[in-house]
Amino acid sequence: MKTMTASEKGASAGAKPPATPPLEPTYEGDFVINGDFQLESGRTLASPTLHYAVYGRLNAARDNAVLVCHALSGSALVGSWWPEVFAPGALLSLEQDFVICINMLGSCYGSTGPSTNNPETGQPYGADFPLVSIRDNVRAQALLLDSLGIRKLRLVLGGSLGGMQALEWTIYDPSRVERGVIIAVAPLGAMGLALNHLQRQAIQNDPDWLNGTYLPQKPPRAGLALARQIAMMSYKSPELFEERFGRNPNRNGENPWALNADGGGLTGGRFDIAGYLDYQGHRFLDRFDANAYLAILRTMDTWDPLTGYESPMQVFSRIRAHLTFVGISSDWLFPEAQVRAFAELIRASGVNADYREMISAHGHDAFLAEQAQLVRLLQ
Amino acid sequence: MKTMTASEKGASAGAKPPATPPLEPTYEGDFVINGDFQLESGRTLASPTLHYAVYGRLNAARDNAVLVCHALSGSALVGSWWPEVFAPGALLSLEQDFVICINMLGSCYGSTGPSTNNPETGQPYGADFPLVSIRDNVRAQALLLDSLGIRKLRLVLGGSLGGMQALEWTIYDPSRVERGVIIAVAPLGAMGLALNHLQRQAIQNDPDWLNGTYLPQKPPRAGLALARQIAMMSYKSPELFEERFGRNPNRNGENPWALNADGGGLTGGRFDIAGYLDYQGHRFLDRFDANAYLAILRTMDTWDPLTGYESPMQVFSRIRAHLTFVGISSDWLFPEAQVRAFAELIRASGVNADYREMISAHGHDAFLAEQAQLVRLLQ
Repeated sequence: MKTMTASEKGASAGAKPPATPPLEPTYEGDFVINGDFQLESGRTLASPTLHYAVYGRLNAARDNAVLVCHALSGSALVGSWWPEVFAPGALLSLEQDFVICINMLGSCYGSTGPSTNNPETGQPYGADFPLVSIRDNVRAQALLLDSLGIRKLRLVLGGSLGGMQALEWTIYDPSRVERGVIIAVAPLGAMGLALNHLQRQAIQNDPDWLNGTYLPQKPPRAGLALARQIAMMSYKSPELFEERFGRNPNRNGENPWALNADGGGLTGGRFDIAGYLDYQGHRFLDRFDANAYLAILRTMDTWDPLTGYESPMQVFSRIRAHLTFVGISSDWLFPEAQVRAFAELIRASGVNADYREMISAHGHDAFLAEQAQLVRLLQ
Repeated sequence: MKTMTASEKGASAGAKPPATPPLEPTYEGDFVINGDFQLESGRTLASPTLHYAVYGRLNAARDNAVLVCHALSGSALVGSWWPEVFAPGALLSLEQDFVICINMLGSCYGSTGPSTNNPETGQPYGADFPLVSIRDNVRAQALLLDSLGIRKLRLVLGGSLGGMQALEWTIYDPSRVERGVIIAVAPLGAMGLALNHLQRQAIQNDPDWLNGTYLPQKPPRAGLALARQIAMMSYKSPELFEERFGRNPNRNGENPWALNADGGGLTGGRFDIAGYLDYQGHRFLDRFDANAYLAILRTMDTWDPLTGYESPMQVFSRIRAHLTFVGISSDWLFPEAQVRAFAELIRASGVNADYREMISAHGHDAFLAEQAQLVRLLQ
């Protein structure tokens, strides 16, 4: 286990967006699973599409493939949201690796999700979109890899929901995966389940949600924005918020002590943190769909690799890959101690697994917000 | 006015009801401030009412008065929500003390608030209810104490918003207060401001809020319930949630992995923590008003004793009382470190102040949920 120094910790608090520009994929396209795809829930998806992107080239031996799994609001374009992981000397290399990233089922970035038309009805699935488990996603991804002739993954990695997929890969097809890197994740604990429950209600309380039947031009904007803001609580940390925003009035000049324009006092000018959250919530509306959000929250809630097995030993002893777990010191959604304990549980089943702690004030988001530090930790 | 029973109090704290039964007040009644009461915001309240309760009897020397200040959703009935503080040998004595508790302006337990009719319009204030600061509350409370002939407070104490009032008392009328106990509070930090911002939106997003003009029979129920649930995140701690609820399915038998009754999968059976939060949110609807909630959130947000002063020394050096600060180890709304630093800042201004840490997994709620421990800590 590696520990960051105090100065590294200090530097992390003022981290800036990654300097590395987004990478263009070698190829971006769709893979369609023919016929009915059976889900764990008992439902099926008819000919679902997986949207995916690849970076670099598959070598002749077909042994340089890496699968990156994305988190809740991510997309297949890993070169856009995780560019520093591809920096020279970092984890992945465009020269040596063939990197694949596949949009999750249920998402709104090209794979089949609630806004996709259900072939059986000709209408979008909406609230009828079935629960797609992490295992379902992994089985679907395996079909895509099969179609590309990839029988070996040098590495599968991901943070948060991506880490759930990465670990499930090492259980689902143990002989296919050489190494797994599982970041900031464990089966979601009570506090995480609670946070997801709040976000779900924020969307469902919005009258524009219409039980999931809203039209694309009139989505539940206020509800989705509030859901995103609730999530931001757990993506960052109190320390970071305090340092960045403190009790400052909103930087646009609003005065939290002033009367409203109409003289009322139930609400007033915002503090800076409120302006920031509103901005984050609003931005999210341009890039995400409320029903997709609900679908993936449920995928996240219900993941527990023990489901269907009798003991941790029974499930985890299947794993052949070398696993590295990363916990984030200020993570509140997947607390560092829970990630550590989860890694311990898996190691106790005889798996070759190590654990590393990332010291960061960025909370759960640190694996996205502090990519350079993550890369150093994993080298 | 609504009265909380002991079991409601216990439910609000998420803890077992205290063993001590609720105490009946010696007197419970209203005090009306004659004429316009000037507020810091520049607005006035016309002849506002303060609802209050007293316990015990004022002695002949009039020197046995104690003022207890309540928190966000509290009432004047301190004997109902803090009974163990009156236990034999505890902090307060019905034989020796004359204990007063006054419902905050803006609340819905008898004092003037958003649901009160504005004498100028004959209609409820609603969203037009002005910002009432902590200082405004203290000035109003002082008028009530004056009317009772109380010139000396042996002790003023409170947790959370109650602690804000208690400290402000020692600044507003230094010679009147001998001792102050200030629990789990400091000027609200960025994370706390963020949580309040989320709760505010939860209410305002509810179509039944109607910009604060809802009728009593059709309040914004879903919004207020969600606000309460968001608040519960910060009232408890991840450790406590994990221990009590973990990943258990809801105890009513719902299955989080099952399809909905209609076969849809965006939402499903709840986990136990979600059932608990729904229950807490729903219970709150019976005892609190959404506009009152918004009003007091703003009172809480805007409190900073430095406002209007040039330096901490200038404001805190006014204090003559001996102060005891209590921080709660698992408090996330007012983190222990922030309470400690706040106490240090005040001590650095020459105030006789000590600091004690309460070790508890109950988070911010610990001062209500673990009264016996609090009493021991303060003895």
